[in-house]
Amino acid sequence: MTTSDNAPAQDAGKPASNGDAKPKAPAKDPWDLPDVSGLVVGVLGGTGDQGRGLAYRLARAGQKVIVGSRSADRARTAAEEIGSGVEGADNAHCARRSDIVIVAVPWEGHEALLTALREDLSGKLVVDCVNPLGFDKKGAYALTPAEGSAAEQAAALLPDSRVVAAFHHLSAVLLQDPDVEQIDTDVMVLGESRADTDVVQALAGRIPGMRGVYSGRLRNAHQVESLVANLISANRRYKAHAGLRLTDV
Amino acid sequence: MTTSDNAPAQDAGKPASNGDAKPKAPAKDPWDLPDVSGLVVGVLGGTGDQGRGLAYRLARAGQKVIVGSRSADRARTAAEEIGSGVEGADNAHCARRSDIVIVAVPWEGHEALLTALREDLSGKLVVDCVNPLGFDKKGAYALTPAEGSAAEQAAALLPDSRVVAAFHHLSAVLLQDPDVEQIDTDVMVLGESRADTDVVQALAGRIPGMRGVYSGRLRNAHQVESLVANLISANRRYKAHAGLRLTDV
Repeated sequence: MTTSDNAPAQDAGKPASNGDAKPKAPAKDPWDLPDVSGLVVGVLGGTGDQGRGLAYRLARAGQKVIVGSRSADRARTAAEEIGSGVEGADNAHCARRSDIVIVAVPWEGHEALLTALREDLSGKLVVDCVNPLGFDKKGAYALTPAEGSAAEQAAALLPDSRVVAAFHHLSAVLLQDPDVEQIDTDVMVLGESRADTDVVQALAGRIPGMRGVYSGRLRNAHQVESLVANLISANRRYKAHAGLRLTDV
Repeated sequence: MTTSDNAPAQDAGKPASNGDAKPKAPAKDPWDLPDVSGLVVGVLGGTGDQGRGLAYRLARAGQKVIVGSRSADRARTAAEEIGSGVEGADNAHCARRSDIVIVAVPWEGHEALLTALREDLSGKLVVDCVNPLGFDKKGAYALTPAEGSAAEQAAALLPDSRVVAAFHHLSAVLLQDPDVEQIDTDVMVLGESRADTDVVQALAGRIPGMRGVYSGRLRNAHQVESLVANLISANRRYKAHAGLRLTDV
């Protein structure tokens, strides 16, 4: 035991008040987010359930969306099925034509895909929404990438891209259901640069019901990615499609 | 890449429908929780902010609460300050007199305390709410215990106790503020036995505004414990005391 019984509650780490401190410039309003309506969004893995659902929701909100796949034909077929003006292209063209590129591939293919697309993703804002999970008879459990998280692996593999982690806790079932008008959830957005996390928060906010909430640096991405294992457990118990809201924010 | 673009969304791992399967007994209503109003709750680390806040809220809700500390005198002083009929005792007596024992000590003292109290905690329902975190200039970050999580460490150290993980995401500031009537948050409850997680969900539900939600097995406790690092980041950005709600549950 330490000399104090003081448990590290979530309030920990706040700067102590200091009567001698100089007054700071007023902090920027955290809800003052940029207009992203003109940006092109690519979705790698856009033919899978998660990617398809995100592409559909963003396009339905008015965003220009390109879904990527290894096969341009498969991507174009998926794009036609999604509708709302979505286009399809092979992954490299999808990356090159987009301002923001969402990575929605299975964890098993994450490293190989990003290694292959390093040049195509150069200069892009890359949004990693991959959840490294394993499954066995007891359900889902977290896998721990050597880099700490899928997002940190992306940052290591893509030194010329800006990497943000977001969109981990969405139900592909709800995303793809055209009768669902609102996606009632917050999107935890993590990254190293405020300009980049602001853009991704704004993008999340384009989808009715969704709100992008800044939730820390990439070194804290692992727990956000693997929390999906807990949501799967809750979904089974409650026969739900659980999302997350941050209260008091 | 695998042969499928299908990202592991949170819907993954659901059993496929099987037309040949025999009809199952109807599942127990997950909100049919036991009456825990007669159980005595001990709070180890009850003189710290988090423990003090939990003791206060549970006692205010009508629960019999004993706060524990290394020093019985300090525990009794804290109990008087908390009021609402809370008693104080040294940690060993706190454990022995309680049905449910909440562990709210700092991570640094977790292993030594539980090792010392192994016999006192025998047969008890132990609720671990410890968040293993480190802090540096960039804020909070997750520590990874050798056992995987604080809760799994508790389970390993206490083979004769039943260990549940819960109460990780609470703001000690809000818990301790007598003017706050409701604590607007869900409590993620993890454990191996449904009977035990049901009891802890019911205990959480005693506090107005709080709801206990089953969120998986102990092997998925690490991400729940370390998510506090993300809440701390959100709290700083939004000047909030963030809690969590699971939507659609």
